[in-house]
Amino acid sequence: MNFASDNVTGACPEVLQALLAANEGSAMPYGNDPLTEAVEGRLVALFGCDLKAFPVATGTAANALALACLAPPYGAIYCHAEAHINVDECGAPELMTGGAKLVPLAGEAGKLTPETLAAAIHGAGVVHHNQPAAVSLTNETEAGTLYRPEELAALSAVAREHGLKVHLDGARFANAVAALGCSPADLTWRAGVDVLSFGATKNGCLAAEAVVFFDKAAAEAFPYYRKRAGHLFSKMRMISAQLGGYFEDEIWLRNARHANAMARRLAEGLAALPGCSLLHPCEANEVFVAVPAPAIERLREAGFGFYEWAPGQLRLVCAWNTEEADVARFLETAAAALERGDSAAR
Amino acid sequence: MNFASDNVTGACPEVLQALLAANEGSAMPYGNDPLTEAVEGRLVALFGCDLKAFPVATGTAANALALACLAPPYGAIYCHAEAHINVDECGAPELMTGGAKLVPLAGEAGKLTPETLAAAIHGAGVVHHNQPAAVSLTNETEAGTLYRPEELAALSAVAREHGLKVHLDGARFANAVAALGCSPADLTWRAGVDVLSFGATKNGCLAAEAVVFFDKAAAEAFPYYRKRAGHLFSKMRMISAQLGGYFEDEIWLRNARHANAMARRLAEGLAALPGCSLLHPCEANEVFVAVPAPAIERLREAGFGFYEWAPGQLRLVCAWNTEEADVARFLETAAAALERGDSAAR
Amino acid sequence: MNFASDNVTGACPEVLQALLAANEGSAMPYGNDPLTEAVEGRLVALFGCDLKAFPVATGTAANALALACLAPPYGAIYCHAEAHINVDECGAPELMTGGAKLVPLAGEAGKLTPETLAAAIHGAGVVHHNQPAAVSLTNETEAGTLYRPEELAALSAVAREHGLKVHLDGARFANAVAALGCSPADLTWRAGVDVLSFGATKNGCLAAEAVVFFDKAAAEAFPYYRKRAGHLFSKMRMISAQLGGYFEDEIWLRNARHANAMARRLAEGLAALPGCSLLHPCEANEVFVAVPAPAIERLREAGFGFYEWAPGQLRLVCAWNTEEADVARFLETAAAALERGDSAAR
Amino acid sequence: MNFASDNVTGACPEVLQALLAANEGSAMPYGNDPLTEAVEGRLVALFGCDLKAFPVATGTAANALALACLAPPYGAIYCHAEAHINVDECGAPELMTGGAKLVPLAGEAGKLTPETLAAAIHGAGVVHHNQPAAVSLTNETEAGTLYRPEELAALSAVAREHGLKVHLDGARFANAVAALGCSPADLTWRAGVDVLSFGATKNGCLAAEAVVFFDKAAAEAFPYYRKRAGHLFSKMRMISAQLGGYFEDEIWLRNARHANAMARRLAEGLAALPGCSLLHPCEANEVFVAVPAPAIERLREAGFGFYEWAPGQLRLVCAWNTEEADVARFLETAAAALERGDSAAR
Repeated sequence: MNFASDNVTGACPEVLQALLAANEGSAMPYGNDPLTEAVEGRLVALFGCDLKAFPVATGTAANALALACLAPPYGAIYCHAEAHINVDECGAPELMTGGAKLVPLAGEAGKLTPETLAAAIHGAGVVHHNQPAAVSLTNETEAGTLYRPEELAALSAVAREHGLKVHLDGARFANAVAALGCSPADLTWRAGVDVLSFGATKNGCLAAEAVVFFDKAAAEAFPYYRKRAGHLFSKMRMISAQLGGYFEDEIWLRNARHANAMARRLAEGLAALPGCSLLHPCEANEVFVAVPAPAIERLREAGFGFYEWAPGQLRLVCAWNTEEADVARFLETAAAALERGDSAAR
Repeated sequence: MNFASDNVTGACPEVLQALLAANEGSAMPYGNDPLTEAVEGRLVALFGCDLKAFPVATGTAANALALACLAPPYGAIYCHAEAHINVDECGAPELMTGGAKLVPLAGEAGKLTPETLAAAIHGAGVVHHNQPAAVSLTNETEAGTLYRPEELAALSAVAREHGLKVHLDGARFANAVAALGCSPADLTWRAGVDVLSFGATKNGCLAAEAVVFFDKAAAEAFPYYRKRAGHLFSKMRMISAQLGGYFEDEIWLRNARHANAMARRLAEGLAALPGCSLLHPCEANEVFVAVPAPAIERLREAGFGFYEWAPGQLRLVCAWNTEEADVARFLETAAAALERGDSAAR
Repeated sequence: MNFASDNVTGACPEVLQALLAANEGSAMPYGNDPLTEAVEGRLVALFGCDLKAFPVATGTAANALALACLAPPYGAIYCHAEAHINVDECGAPELMTGGAKLVPLAGEAGKLTPETLAAAIHGAGVVHHNQPAAVSLTNETEAGTLYRPEELAALSAVAREHGLKVHLDGARFANAVAALGCSPADLTWRAGVDVLSFGATKNGCLAAEAVVFFDKAAAEAFPYYRKRAGHLFSKMRMISAQLGGYFEDEIWLRNARHANAMARRLAEGLAALPGCSLLHPCEANEVFVAVPAPAIERLREAGFGFYEWAPGQLRLVCAWNTEEADVARFLETAAAALERGDSAAR
Repeated sequence: MNFASDNVTGACPEVLQALLAANEGSAMPYGNDPLTEAVEGRLVALFGCDLKAFPVATGTAANALALACLAPPYGAIYCHAEAHINVDECGAPELMTGGAKLVPLAGEAGKLTPETLAAAIHGAGVVHHNQPAAVSLTNETEAGTLYRPEELAALSAVAREHGLKVHLDGARFANAVAALGCSPADLTWRAGVDVLSFGATKNGCLAAEAVVFFDKAAAEAFPYYRKRAGHLFSKMRMISAQLGGYFEDEIWLRNARHANAMARRLAEGLAALPGCSLLHPCEANEVFVAVPAPAIERLREAGFGFYEWAPGQLRLVCAWNTEEADVARFLETAAAALERGDSAAR
């Protein structure tokens, strides 16, 4: 009954099983083990293209290390003002890039438009300005919305035109793929993405992400950046094993589809309640919703967890293990509170 | 039969069990969970003093983040020339400190002397020179040897005299404690250590270390350094749970004692073989030994794993799960090869 | 006839004379010379308070090194979106601070309001966010406007309330003091400024700025930051001598008053021309003005230098040596063009 | 009479004259002026090859910014343990490279041998180790000795073989060229040097160095590194003018020859005194000499400036303006003291 985030969960059984299996016996450290070597092959199959892939353990590491490969220390990285890399990583991109500047851009519902991006890019070749180097997009966005393949392609086209690389923060990439019903390729390299932070932690793993370079040349320094950031695990197989379990039998999609379905149910239920309204369309596994204060209070008392981002505004996140019964109970609790609230207000 | 390192192992059963238990249910992320909150208390009990403790997932992260709290970007950090931080972390301390300089010092058998340290410290207050900030010692050392409490205290006294902080890289701290039979306190704060990287990964965990600040004031910025390095795990309980299992019932000591015993057996066995000689005293769980080339070849053929650091010089590492039978077989294989080698040479 | 910037000028005679005098004989290097030692005393007298002062050679160095003393690598520095530190220093603050994040804020005519600042500050103590550390203001602003002492004090009060330090980029501080007719103290420490980048290069020197710490404790690491950035000059007396000549006999104020007077004349003349209008009030030595395209073309043909920041929008900067005759000729040329332009348009 | 360093001097008349001439009129800032544009042409003529050249104001900036173009943040830069970049720049190379590691090597009389260099290089392609990136040599060395062209070529050959770039710290490059009587080309690109820090400050300028890239591709990011380090001067012509005066009419060689001649005289005179002995051969403009304590005291009393690097060991540096009479008086003072000292000891 904790809707605070999808990272409040443990691992799903298949991932846990893979981890237990990997614990047996010995293996060479630092990624020189069969499980780690298998990760890239799995992703090649998944994306249908040649690529380089590296397991890491946190999303912040994935993003910041990916960006270190795309931007020089004097570079500029364009992103949404609310992007996780800009507001929730305590300066990790600046650390890993050696000081590159994130340029925050405005955009409705967590999304950038090609026009906004094009207008922001400037200063190439002019020594006074941070040099345009990359754009970082997030899909599923910070607002729970989605970029469609053609939207990504339009943004990438602007990036290409100005010589920028394209990074995709896919902390909830699985939810985006599951919701849009398109292929992983359609949402990445076919739409011009050079590097993907492919999240797994939130969607059924314990601590596992894959940094996927469709632009293989950009990956050259990644192993050194990862090591010197302390993100090359000696028992790397323990991360790789999670990814193995996650990608096997489309577990990643199954988990994401479930989370999305629960969120949709939650969103529809809340939208139908008096005084409640969705702040953004619920397109994947997050619900941003305005709820009257008394109902919020009642939900808290009932033991539900969630973030109140602004007074009266909630973020509710569903996960691979969110139960229908909890969603139903949440809606009932809110409904009951709002009815009472209505009478009280009369 | 892999003696290459103690990091080729999986987790010991108790640690794995703790991890499985932690996977149940939900918990608040980023360390705001009961398991993480319990870590500090366990360490307070273990060290018998007030302290601040932070779980991280790799030894390189532990070391570099600890040093970031001790040295400014223009600081100098004195260490053994062979220290892991100097030669095996691809510049992690430089990244996390913002560019501090490691000053490599010579020393027999992986150990520094107070005289060497005192002679190296210079330049305080002189703007041209990196400013003396910290000394980093390793115990168990890189040569498998040990500092005794009084040796650490003598080095710390030199550090104190010059205003330096003292960091202890304890990737194999458990092996040192187990071997010396003294208390964790004797080998740390009572001997002048300000910050300890307390390793657990090699000794029965999957990916878990604790950065332990006896100098609590020095810990102030640690949470921010950890976060911006991507080392604050969303599902932090999965690291903390490992530490929980590790420190419960003295598992950490049991594991280390076993590894040390196996190494001693290996060392004594090898030292008795013709043509073999220990390069350093075997004081904990590592054996550095000169072995004639034919025997090395034969051991490889028999499927044993180990590092040949220089031609004819092996490092053999025992772990929590090294089996007596494997040690015996290793010795027999070597003995057989050397007898044959002897005859061949006649 | 070059109004492109005040940095197109050479040194004024008094500064040049001081430099020539300093060239005689020998002096100890790296600032251990009498001329350098005298700089602080001059500034103590000028500001009427205790302080620490350091000569550097460029404005970018002054700003970035000052900020390095105010913000940790994981810090946030609030500034106007158009601030020189944010858009014209190619990431120098990020380099010198080790990666602190500049948070760009909107504001009319180059100025921040206390409300905007207060609304932006957030995240203190929350590990996910860059930690609020400092605010950087510019006076004379990038738009040629001025903060009054009470405006600075109001902004500083917000900063204080949130534990932020206050940096003032005074590349054209002399012009601000001269225009407002208040004391240097009124525009700095009495208004809550902790560190001032006191510009001199643009206003009669060749390459000289003073970083002035009213918060002396914040200056502790400055000498090391300066040295490791390559900004401690061996023949430091050559920078200090310029500052000596600049502050002697109020040359700095004389120069600034002249530049301001010329700019006012230019602004008033242009504002009176048909089709021209000031984009910002001309409060010191810069004129931002909309001018019809044909007049711009004519002015270029006549050999005048200036920046066209946006189509039809000029920045004109006056300096210590701008001549009345050049101002008059500029106005005449523009007037003539606009009359012709008018006829052409009929 | 100050032999402490060659940086205690002012500018020579020709350089000062060039500076004064440059002060007239206006010029576009940030190096977009004719004097700056002329610098590269002068150096092309001097070195007889295509190159890229950039004026900067300090030797530390020249070195650190050059190295930033040669080594990634995870790189290793090999240098003599006593190199200025290693011990006298407070970590500037680490700052500008983003954390590359200087690997200090031993060597007689300030010089590295190819064998020492070859033995030190290791770890290429192994992710645990800083990646071999560059070697930095100093000529005239820190011990006042010289590398001959063939010695540089032998070191460069080792570097090439391992894929390293070669940097030459030429703070006293003029003295080396003058002493060896070979061409600037022989001591740089013909001997495998990729980038030269060509010093001018010590040898007749106020604050001027040129970073000369014989490997033009390596220079690509230099302008951005320079700007973000605050080393792009707005009135750049003031630095470029110094270089103009310095390279005109071989002033740089004339100055260096004079300094070298004075040092030779000093060295020969001291070597002939009882109890004195040269610590290194005097090959250019520096004298390292052991002098009995009473003579040192007497020289101090007589007002001579010098550094006593270790008890009884002096460094004496001659410059473009060292006067024969001062050298003679120094020798006489020392001689007189030593005679008296002798009697006293009897």
